[in-house]
Amino acid sequence: MNPTITAFERSPDRGQGLARDMPVRWALEEVGQPYDVRLVSFRAMKEPAHLARHPFGQIPTYEEGDLVLFESGAIVLHIAERHAGLLPDDANARTRAIMWMFAALDTVEPPILELTTVKLIEGDKPWAKERLPLVEHRIRVRLGGLSSRLGDADWLDGAFSAGDLLMVTVLRRLNRSGLLGEYPNLSAYVARGETRPAFRRAFDAQLAVFAAAPAG
Amino acid sequence: MNPTITAFERSPDRGQGLARDMPVRWALEEVGQPYDVRLVSFRAMKEPAHLARHPFGQIPTYEEGDLVLFESGAIVLHIAERHAGLLPDDANARTRAIMWMFAALDTVEPPILELTTVKLIEGDKPWAKERLPLVEHRIRVRLGGLSSRLGDADWLDGAFSAGDLLMVTVLRRLNRSGLLGEYPNLSAYVARGETRPAFRRAFDAQLAVFAAAPAG
Repeated sequence: MNPTITAFERSPDRGQGLARDMPVRWALEEVGQPYDVRLVSFRAMKEPAHLARHPFGQIPTYEEGDLVLFESGAIVLHIAERHAGLLPDDANARTRAIMWMFAALDTVEPPILELTTVKLIEGDKPWAKERLPLVEHRIRVRLGGLSSRLGDADWLDGAFSAGDLLMVTVLRRLNRSGLLGEYPNLSAYVARGETRPAFRRAFDAQLAVFAAAPAG
Repeated sequence: MNPTITAFERSPDRGQGLARDMPVRWALEEVGQPYDVRLVSFRAMKEPAHLARHPFGQIPTYEEGDLVLFESGAIVLHIAERHAGLLPDDANARTRAIMWMFAALDTVEPPILELTTVKLIEGDKPWAKERLPLVEHRIRVRLGGLSSRLGDADWLDGAFSAGDLLMVTVLRRLNRSGLLGEYPNLSAYVARGETRPAFRRAFDAQLAVFAAAPAG
């Protein structure tokens, strides 16, 4: 039986693939595991049936027999552990790939999410304009460290791994900011991820949901 | 040979155990693995020798033979995978414990870190006072979801796990904010974690470093 994931009935990013079902779809496509999708509305996400699956009332969730998971990083790791293709065989290399998963979500993403706060959530506040450069500086500190470590390599540590999958996912949030363009090797890294056939299939699948959704 | 971790030569939290070596020390104490500590100054953290271990110039790092890791979540997971005591044996329960590790770091911690931003990093900015309640609201949304899920259980999913270790670590950042007191079951949960003998040993070890440090 296929696992079932949840995704937005109508994604707030209008099909840019920035919602957190995207890395889960991408991981499933990389390992060749078909999956089913249950779409949830913003209202249904806060109702008891969904909260039983996801205590914070978000997407995605992942159901596979008796196992019910939330948290996209944990779901991607679960998929990577159960199938070949997203983690190296060598024990130390495997541990380092998982390290990059945590680095993507815990070190690189937080300042990038602050950009959403300052531009959108607090975009109408009087401090938005003055805070923006402070937030951008924090992002550049992280991008600089990442860019130096990546150098001219294709991926962060040898072959493409679940660490790259999450890092590319996180960096894609900057696609419209112009910040990524300051680091040509990171721009190329993201483009490299986006041209993988599994990424394209995942992207097209989430875009199809948006395109089919009733007008908001 | 013992693994070697790095920690601040002089912790900016003055020994409250909020620096990220704390969860690594705690995990090592839970599984009974002795470890060595190399202290690093703020200057040394940004120098090539340390950047080779940690591309973002932070602590902790973890060295064990040929394996060099950064990212506290990844280090705790590595310790939990190599030793008994921090992950359940049952495969689904193990996956859920790892899910709670990601939930602590990726869903609960980010708004809590914003509290540091608004109170300390941007504490002198004209918007600090007006932004504070917005940030506190975001924290309460997460604490409410977590509190509902925990209910009257001792730990998040059965026995104490690496998921609880990281969740307690994250919630301790709120100890001085008063926010945790609004959720009695979460306050009790944190206290339950802090009374574990392994937590006490880890806490005392990091406090001893601060107490022995030269005056700043």
